[in-house]
Amino acid sequence: MPDNRFFPSSCQFSLSEIAQFTDASTTTSGDKKFSGVAPLETAGENDISFLDNIKYISAFEASKAGACFVRKKFAERAPKTMQLLITEEPYYAYAIAAQKFHPQENFAAGISPNAQISKTASIGKNVRIDSGAVIGDNVKISDNCWIGANTVIDKGVEIGEATRVGALCSLSHTLIGRNVVIHRGVHIGQDGFGFAAGKKGITKVPQLGLVVIGDNVEIGSGTCIDRGAGHNTTIGDNSKIDNLVQIGHNVQIGRYTMIAAQTGIAGSTHIGDKVLIGGQVGLAGHTTVESGAKLAAQAGIMTDIPAGATYGGSPAIPILDWHRQTATIAKLSKRKS
Amino acid sequence: MPDNRFFPSSCQFSLSEIAQFTDASTTTSGDKKFSGVAPLETAGENDISFLDNIKYISAFEASKAGACFVRKKFAERAPKTMQLLITEEPYYAYAIAAQKFHPQENFAAGISPNAQISKTASIGKNVRIDSGAVIGDNVKISDNCWIGANTVIDKGVEIGEATRVGALCSLSHTLIGRNVVIHRGVHIGQDGFGFAAGKKGITKVPQLGLVVIGDNVEIGSGTCIDRGAGHNTTIGDNSKIDNLVQIGHNVQIGRYTMIAAQTGIAGSTHIGDKVLIGGQVGLAGHTTVESGAKLAAQAGIMTDIPAGATYGGSPAIPILDWHRQTATIAKLSKRKS
Amino acid sequence: MPDNRFFPSSCQFSLSEIAQFTDASTTTSGDKKFSGVAPLETAGENDISFLDNIKYISAFEASKAGACFVRKKFAERAPKTMQLLITEEPYYAYAIAAQKFHPQENFAAGISPNAQISKTASIGKNVRIDSGAVIGDNVKISDNCWIGANTVIDKGVEIGEATRVGALCSLSHTLIGRNVVIHRGVHIGQDGFGFAAGKKGITKVPQLGLVVIGDNVEIGSGTCIDRGAGHNTTIGDNSKIDNLVQIGHNVQIGRYTMIAAQTGIAGSTHIGDKVLIGGQVGLAGHTTVESGAKLAAQAGIMTDIPAGATYGGSPAIPILDWHRQTATIAKLSKRKS
Repeated sequence: MPDNRFFPSSCQFSLSEIAQFTDASTTTSGDKKFSGVAPLETAGENDISFLDNIKYISAFEASKAGACFVRKKFAERAPKTMQLLITEEPYYAYAIAAQKFHPQENFAAGISPNAQISKTASIGKNVRIDSGAVIGDNVKISDNCWIGANTVIDKGVEIGEATRVGALCSLSHTLIGRNVVIHRGVHIGQDGFGFAAGKKGITKVPQLGLVVIGDNVEIGSGTCIDRGAGHNTTIGDNSKIDNLVQIGHNVQIGRYTMIAAQTGIAGSTHIGDKVLIGGQVGLAGHTTVESGAKLAAQAGIMTDIPAGATYGGSPAIPILDWHRQTATIAKLSKRKS
Repeated sequence: MPDNRFFPSSCQFSLSEIAQFTDASTTTSGDKKFSGVAPLETAGENDISFLDNIKYISAFEASKAGACFVRKKFAERAPKTMQLLITEEPYYAYAIAAQKFHPQENFAAGISPNAQISKTASIGKNVRIDSGAVIGDNVKISDNCWIGANTVIDKGVEIGEATRVGALCSLSHTLIGRNVVIHRGVHIGQDGFGFAAGKKGITKVPQLGLVVIGDNVEIGSGTCIDRGAGHNTTIGDNSKIDNLVQIGHNVQIGRYTMIAAQTGIAGSTHIGDKVLIGGQVGLAGHTTVESGAKLAAQAGIMTDIPAGATYGGSPAIPILDWHRQTATIAKLSKRKS
Repeated sequence: MPDNRFFPSSCQFSLSEIAQFTDASTTTSGDKKFSGVAPLETAGENDISFLDNIKYISAFEASKAGACFVRKKFAERAPKTMQLLITEEPYYAYAIAAQKFHPQENFAAGISPNAQISKTASIGKNVRIDSGAVIGDNVKISDNCWIGANTVIDKGVEIGEATRVGALCSLSHTLIGRNVVIHRGVHIGQDGFGFAAGKKGITKVPQLGLVVIGDNVEIGSGTCIDRGAGHNTTIGDNSKIDNLVQIGHNVQIGRYTMIAAQTGIAGSTHIGDKVLIGGQVGLAGHTTVESGAKLAAQAGIMTDIPAGATYGGSPAIPILDWHRQTATIAKLSKRKS
């Protein structure tokens, strides 16, 4: 069970309640009450766990979890003490169950006397602003927002309802939607890397666009999103961005796109909807990644990527070609040795 | 036109004034007044735009911009409503024009009552220090500097005239020149990653150098620059560094060098003048990149790079060799399949 | 000698004292007093330097250092003015000597009146907390800790004795050991990137683990360490992590492991003891790197790595295979051109 100093939970749910929340089926009696969720290795008789990745089948077989989400095909390998919650989406079902036991933390509204808030800022109802936060002129913060400690929000920024901005973030030249989660140490809206070279030297290109972030977006710690140079930098609804990602000026990202840690997207690149981008991927400027594409970790994207395609390698090529090339090199290299 | 809540402009310039600022030539009457700049797609009749990249030729042909910087060879493809500003450096000319409409933001001098400033710090004239900033003993901040909110400047740091340090930065053991721009969330002067391994274990190597930054340098958000271990870490005049770059201890960077996002430079590496480094490049320690070299994005630099050379790949090789190798692998791989 | 505005030292040690501290041997009279350490190029007659890397042999031959740590085999190339400290571990010996001249900076204990500290926080003896720090409910800070300016520590975090947390860090859901050094701008304990995809869409997976950090760990600026999703994210005693590293949820890192800058470790990956990881390495999720393995810079780890092995390339393979493949491609590519 989670450490209750950090994750208090007083909820209990019966097996049948959990099955109902998660659309799982169960063949055993549903009366038993459960008090939490836990990984296979540490779960006890009152905990619910899950098996999603075949790598963990031995942990599943040895688990003392009282109940477990599992695909039908692995059900027969369960220990006898375990009640089963059969579903073809065990990780998703686990997530839903975990949300029931540990709903998103509520917060007490209130504005710290140590926050600095401009008189022209507009602050909604039930807002929390923590110590050391600095809120500039004409900023609009909607109802139910939480602004973390020592975060700095420059003039004119607008934040939609129920958005949470973590500690130590900086925001400028940015319009943010509803239910957005911005983790700690995120910097949004600063100048992009815009310099023009000419016979007279290098000169700075004024960065005259904004950052526009949709609803239900999540942005990881340490990520930097530069504002547009001309067009806005935009991130569509429901897209999720991991830690330490770099997003250059004028980049446009669609909806439901997932971007893993340390990926870098150079200026003016366009990414469609439901694109999956692995960690440490680099995307050159002025390229287009069509909707539904998948980019393997560390890929180097130099050209446009068609809809639904999977690419890997640097420079990136279709993933099957990449695997074949990798195998070819290995073979040729052996032959010569 | 830029969103005037964030980018107010009341300037107007005539076509001939703009042509004069930018050394562009124009064949049409120069009396019309323009009120701003905008990208091809969104510019209106009172805006000036630019065509620099052939990728955007269709946007150029369809643009409603009142005037546009463009190379002579594309002039004939302009829409009839567009006045032309002919130049072989359209992006540079656009930058100069944009600077005229949107000069760097001025600031009201003043020290926030919520900043903590040591009594032994020396603060010049016309300085702005924002809320929550912490300025240590014997810090010297020259005239016309702006220190952002919640930025922490440790003892002894010296900052030259008209330098701007964004919010949430930390500076220690650092001497900074004039007209430098440090964006938000930059960390400069912390210990480098210095450990010595011996029979008795691992021990920390005291980091006894400084960071010395020249004039007109720009440093992007989230970038970390470690102080020297013995020699100083130095960044030459006019060099520009993008976001989330890592610069190790004792690194020396020349003048007019450009480093794109997420590049990492390991300790004691020397980089010359006018070097261009792409995104996510990695440079091993104790290597030298001579002046004028170009390093492609994601390159892995393990050896010294000669002056003016262009390298790519990991481990990096001359770029033409890299392209040829990439083509060779593709060919061999196809033949076998 | 180091700039004494930043690195004051009033110590002097004789050659024989230094030889004794460092287990070096010396054939010359040991009476002369030295006042500091310096690199070969800048050291003067009262400074001690070191030669560790053959790349710097010319600097050694030309050095004016009064004394120098050096391996026996290079002794005969020393200039005549230089006294020699013979050791097979010159860099380690230099580190020990430098620590004598410049021991870790002491600090004056005291809690800034501008720090915000919860009434339920427990603060040990001889603790320093700087301006703007925010300390939450039930936080425990042990004796002799130093918490930097504007750092934010959320409820329940526990910090062991003599640990130093730099400025502008955020900590939550974290238990930290003794003698840990956390540099500026580090974010620890935030949500991992946990989303489950199902037929109904994407849902957030509650992140219910902690981060547990052992003793004598060092963590570089800008690094992000996500808390566990189920299991804790753990970092073992004496491990050292460089700047801008990403450590995902549930990652387990052993003892005496070194991780260079900009490396990214995806969720649930396990790393053993005494592993050496170069810069910009990427490790896929759910992989295992056994103790003593070495991963070359920019390697892409997709599979488990056996104990003591050295891997490079992306996807990573044994380093000798990688070098052979690199050579093979170069050869084949030349032949065809």
